[in-house]
Amino acid sequence: MKIYNTQSRKKEEFVPIKEGEVSIYCCGPTVYNYFHIGNARPFIVFDTLRRYLEYKGMKVTFVQNFTDIDDKMIRRANEEGITVKELADRFIKEYYHDADALGVERATVNPKATEHIPEIIALIEKLIDKGLAYTCDNGDVYYNTQKFVGYGKLSGQNLEDLESGARVDVDPNKRHPMDFAVWKAQKPGEPAWESPWGMGRPGWHIECSCMSMKYLGETFDIHCGGKDLVFPHHENEIAQSEGATGKPFVHYWMHNGFINVDNEKMSKSAGNFFTVRDISQKYDLEAVRMFMLSAHYRSPINFADVLIEQAKASLERLYTAKDNYEFLLKNAKAEKAGEADAAVIEAAKEAETAFEAAMDDDLNTADALGAIFEFVRKENSLVGENTSKEALQYVLEKLEKLTHVLGLLRRKEEKEDDEVNALLELRAKARAEKNWAESDRLRDQIQALGYVIKDTKQGQQLTRAM
Amino acid sequence: MKIYNTQSRKKEEFVPIKEGEVSIYCCGPTVYNYFHIGNARPFIVFDTLRRYLEYKGMKVTFVQNFTDIDDKMIRRANEEGITVKELADRFIKEYYHDADALGVERATVNPKATEHIPEIIALIEKLIDKGLAYTCDNGDVYYNTQKFVGYGKLSGQNLEDLESGARVDVDPNKRHPMDFAVWKAQKPGEPAWESPWGMGRPGWHIECSCMSMKYLGETFDIHCGGKDLVFPHHENEIAQSEGATGKPFVHYWMHNGFINVDNEKMSKSAGNFFTVRDISQKYDLEAVRMFMLSAHYRSPINFADVLIEQAKASLERLYTAKDNYEFLLKNAKAEKAGEADAAVIEAAKEAETAFEAAMDDDLNTADALGAIFEFVRKENSLVGENTSKEALQYVLEKLEKLTHVLGLLRRKEEKEDDEVNALLELRAKARAEKNWAESDRLRDQIQALGYVIKDTKQGQQLTRAM
Repeated sequence: MKIYNTQSRKKEEFVPIKEGEVSIYCCGPTVYNYFHIGNARPFIVFDTLRRYLEYKGMKVTFVQNFTDIDDKMIRRANEEGITVKELADRFIKEYYHDADALGVERATVNPKATEHIPEIIALIEKLIDKGLAYTCDNGDVYYNTQKFVGYGKLSGQNLEDLESGARVDVDPNKRHPMDFAVWKAQKPGEPAWESPWGMGRPGWHIECSCMSMKYLGETFDIHCGGKDLVFPHHENEIAQSEGATGKPFVHYWMHNGFINVDNEKMSKSAGNFFTVRDISQKYDLEAVRMFMLSAHYRSPINFADVLIEQAKASLERLYTAKDNYEFLLKNAKAEKAGEADAAVIEAAKEAETAFEAAMDDDLNTADALGAIFEFVRKENSLVGENTSKEALQYVLEKLEKLTHVLGLLRRKEEKEDDEVNALLELRAKARAEKNWAESDRLRDQIQALGYVIKDTKQGQQLTRAM
Repeated sequence: MKIYNTQSRKKEEFVPIKEGEVSIYCCGPTVYNYFHIGNARPFIVFDTLRRYLEYKGMKVTFVQNFTDIDDKMIRRANEEGITVKELADRFIKEYYHDADALGVERATVNPKATEHIPEIIALIEKLIDKGLAYTCDNGDVYYNTQKFVGYGKLSGQNLEDLESGARVDVDPNKRHPMDFAVWKAQKPGEPAWESPWGMGRPGWHIECSCMSMKYLGETFDIHCGGKDLVFPHHENEIAQSEGATGKPFVHYWMHNGFINVDNEKMSKSAGNFFTVRDISQKYDLEAVRMFMLSAHYRSPINFADVLIEQAKASLERLYTAKDNYEFLLKNAKAEKAGEADAAVIEAAKEAETAFEAAMDDDLNTADALGAIFEFVRKENSLVGENTSKEALQYVLEKLEKLTHVLGLLRRKEEKEDDEVNALLELRAKARAEKNWAESDRLRDQIQALGYVIKDTKQGQQLTRAM
């Protein structure tokens, strides 16, 4: 498999540190609010990376943090009149609710910053000992960027360039404008922890260095997140971790592209900001996942209602195809695959090959989805009442295996199907008896379940409503 | 209506020169090959602009040229061993074939360069008279960019910047590296026309200045094309036309964004080049149109099979909804709209308002499509067997009117429907008689027409195959 490494700016063959195992750290949410679709993209994309590596037989350790203490957390908790801990607990619960609905598998560990204060303090002490961090009179501790050779290597910048671009009103405590806080002294009313430098709290960047190394080791395979995190967050993580250990921190850096709305980057200030919770009022979040995976993860994508609508419609097509294969399987006459089934099986094999080729090429989920649609298109014209159970099982297994990697086709419809079928039967009876009032009432009931009925000479035709 | 004007770099209120009339010039294809999806985008987008202006009650004159003489035409004709005229005739025919299938309405005029040689020569003579063009010993005529104040105003550059960026191997006949040929002297074996400067042929840029002004006047409303034409093509058109007439050439310049494939601009050299004809082997071109209109025209869009697949699936949803309303209309009991129909009519009115708001905002077709899907989603839950004919007619009229603006829902299915229904009826009969061989044969026949059948206790359920 090839992965585009942000640091080398090229696609590289992926070779894990330990054969058959992969360690991944993905930057998680600051839990001060529902997460927005911009946040959702890395969750979905890198969950798909994990699923694909597992599909390839690897054991994946996937760590994703919760930032449960920072300026935004404190401000929001104050606004709500609750503690920072209460705020974090609430939005961690909400995170799981939305992430589950998006089909994002639970991480191996979801460490929280506030539960790692001793480890964070130990890491900062190590940096101070090595001259890579310095304390200030007010109790802040800063990272000393000038002492870390190679600062800027991830984002392809150097300290001089960065200095000339820095804002003028630089903190007078800093020795260099690019220096950043690893420990922040307590301000009135803020939550704080004891430390060698007085009461305070960790800076944002240090928690990711600390927790990734704790759970994955000083050098691990893949660190991922949104493109906006390349600088300064991930640059600073490298400075902290490699500064402290003297070892390479991460082998492969992966970053997803932005989500735009009407050609502009989605942001609160532009007022074009959508939370996943907002969207879930209108769309099944599986359609949002389909939308996200319809583009290569490094491409910018434009968000528009119509695109979620399209993703949803195409998802229903996959469900319809799957339903049809299951129906045929239940009613198939032949057990064993015969000569006539060769093309059916061949199309499934071809789909698998095309799917893997796309995913191996830097996780090209757009082309992988293309392979699945091509698969279904071919099978729809090949399978029929004469297809054997064995061949249909083969097709269904492949379809389920490939869509599972993408986290799609997760809906279980048996219950609903039974209900709709029972109503359809009642309605057919009512119509046979010319009981139009009852027939209308049943139509309404069926439509309320999300279906459209068409009455034809051949009976009731049912399609899913949009 | 607001239009983003490339020249002013902002959205401006659109005010036509003559009330109720709009003059548009759109750069057309060089007819040396099938056109690719990058070419298709301006054809579809600006056809939609035209349709929307007509929807708003304006009389639109839409001119789109055929470039039927240039280096590429000559090279290709030589390769094929045919005349340039034969090549042009062939690919003009192929252009109409594909453009028709994309729902692009025929232009008011499709002028060809080779049929306007006298007018082109007259325009060049005018430029020479004014000192804006100069002849060379070899029979070439060049535009004298240094003599045109404001050269570079469309693309926001000036001659000095452009000169410093110019390639070193500049034609020694040119007085300035940015000067460009308005007339090219004949080379051996090239088609040529008589002129005051000897046998030769027009340069590329001059045909658009000449033919746009011939059919639309010296100043007209809208000039459009792909973003790649801003410089030098449209910059040169301004220099030629405004140089010759001393009047403003165009009031609004509109340019669509690029189509990328896997994050790279689509181009022959990158090998990621798709003709519309290629795509039509696999997809109904109406789905390609839906795909193109799902993004704002100025956004870059990424091309991937899966996105056409999604556009297609969502298009089928619209057809299904329309079918359902037509079925209900045919069977409706009440003639006149009653109280129960108020919500049905209200939803249609809201859709129209949202659609127009989106289109008025610089032709935001993505949001306009969103409004149509919202419309259908609402109506699907509102309409039923009790909805009156009047209300259903209102819904259908609005749906048809709005989708017509986008050039969608153009398929006429009556014939096919009849055939499928006849086959379904025969199959129901065969099944009742337990004639499974005949039933299977009929299933195959129905599937060959692009449908999937599901046999349920309630009878045969039919859905469109992917």
